[in-house]
Amino acid sequence: MDNARNKRLLESFERSEIMKHFGAEASIISDGYFEITVSKQNFMVRPAGMFNGSTIATLVDISSGYAAASATRQNSYFTTVELKINYLNPALGDKLIARAQVIKNGKRLSVVRSDVFSIQVKGEALVATSLVTLMQLQNRNNETQID
Amino acid sequence: MDNARNKRLLESFERSEIMKHFGAEASIISDGYFEITVSKQNFMVRPAGMFNGSTIATLVDISSGYAAASATRQNSYFTTVELKINYLNPALGDKLIARAQVIKNGKRLSVVRSDVFSIQVKGEALVATSLVTLMQLQNRNNETQID
Amino acid sequence: MDNARNKRLLESFERSEIMKHFGAEASIISDGYFEITVSKQNFMVRPAGMFNGSTIATLVDISSGYAAASATRQNSYFTTVELKINYLNPALGDKLIARAQVIKNGKRLSVVRSDVFSIQVKGEALVATSLVTLMQLQNRNNETQID
Amino acid sequence: MDNARNKRLLESFERSEIMKHFGAEASIISDGYFEITVSKQNFMVRPAGMFNGSTIATLVDISSGYAAASATRQNSYFTTVELKINYLNPALGDKLIARAQVIKNGKRLSVVRSDVFSIQVKGEALVATSLVTLMQLQNRNNETQID
Repeated sequence: MDNARNKRLLESFERSEIMKHFGAEASIISDGYFEITVSKQNFMVRPAGMFNGSTIATLVDISSGYAAASATRQNSYFTTVELKINYLNPALGDKLIARAQVIKNGKRLSVVRSDVFSIQVKGEALVATSLVTLMQLQNRNNETQID
Repeated sequence: MDNARNKRLLESFERSEIMKHFGAEASIISDGYFEITVSKQNFMVRPAGMFNGSTIATLVDISSGYAAASATRQNSYFTTVELKINYLNPALGDKLIARAQVIKNGKRLSVVRSDVFSIQVKGEALVATSLVTLMQLQNRNNETQID
Repeated sequence: MDNARNKRLLESFERSEIMKHFGAEASIISDGYFEITVSKQNFMVRPAGMFNGSTIATLVDISSGYAAASATRQNSYFTTVELKINYLNPALGDKLIARAQVIKNGKRLSVVRSDVFSIQVKGEALVATSLVTLMQLQNRNNETQID
Repeated sequence: MDNARNKRLLESFERSEIMKHFGAEASIISDGYFEITVSKQNFMVRPAGMFNGSTIATLVDISSGYAAASATRQNSYFTTVELKINYLNPALGDKLIARAQVIKNGKRLSVVRSDVFSIQVKGEALVATSLVTLMQLQNRNNETQID
């Protein structure tokens, strides 16, 4: 595991405007794996109280980008080419966890699966699964790794 | 066009926590078509300044739900079954418009295409396209139409 | 495990024109899981010799339908609502195996992941992954279970 | 329009084992657009008589590859990165037409929408729509353009 790179990724995560906005925490990071947790806020819920699809889509998108970045040694960043999400169950509970795992770490393209769970009284429930394709780009201007 | 239903949809849109949060405006509504506009805020952008993928995904999800609802006469609401987005071009500019059009208005399932444009100096640019599948559910408890 | 239902599914598989055409074999079946194997034929390959994307898409589609059917007790059949495939690696080798697993077995909709592997000299390689949404329909006229 | 390139694409189409197998015809080709027609055969249909999802997936995959190739001037070929199909209506009738249009013609990645129609007594019906991502690769060994 490349600790220097993972440290840079976590710093990038903490600087991220959208992740600050969501009050998100990066809980686990290892090569090709990234986990994000958020706690419920008003703008994240549907009238009936469960987390909305947009919040789930945001976690899928961001967790996939960091998972892809954690799998490479290069000074590069990733941009989302496309994403596809299946919503499986109502996202009851007060916390969401996105668990993103790289399936394919290619030279130019990476494919990541991000599963989203909600923490419910009876335990964790899988609320969405996804497939995300990302493209690796050279980091010419020392930009933030991830955006 | 069913004006009473469209009025209810717009009222639902104005009550929506997430749309208030985004400062979003519903610009055009007709049977099977719904358009949403947002202006740039900090949490919507990548470090390099363009709109991020999560904001685009949010507009796709919400605009598709309202477009599907605008195509039916029934007292029902829609839940997103799955969505797929292709990011095509960097979303430069200060405004995003999502234009959602129903392709298939089935008894139980609807399919919507939402195209997202950014307003740039040289005009509008298509920044993302999508396909969204939604399921129609009976509105038993007079819930808000859309969430 | 419902042996009577699984027997009917296998009989349906053996009657299937497209599966006969592909010389496909149903290798394993259990509740919510279905596996199909095919051996290379001319129409399945790209000029460079690997299996083409269409053959992989066919295996994804068919294996998902049978996996969904194997997870229910009802006299019903499934129609594909939508499918999404990521092609991950060149499908070298002479055999393909599709392994379809139900992720969500809902009242009306099921979601299946079908992973496709090719048998190569050095062992199995994952060549594609997918997410497939299917709708359950009542079998009113005693039709073949799967088509 | 680059007639020499389009001629090479049509020759490649006629050599294609899978397209011969389907008895497919390339009906129209222009920059970024490709159309394929097939007539019904036994292996293309479900027990109830309509075209099956695998045949539709095959037409989507192949038509997208040729549409992407018709939009570039380079001596390159395209490989499918991922595809997503929504099945909208039963594919009744005896003929299918896939109409593939490039939406984004990027340096490395192209995005194509292929709509599939069936010819029915009352006219054409849209039976499926799709989004396909393809990657452009250099044709080093003078391989067939498309596979």
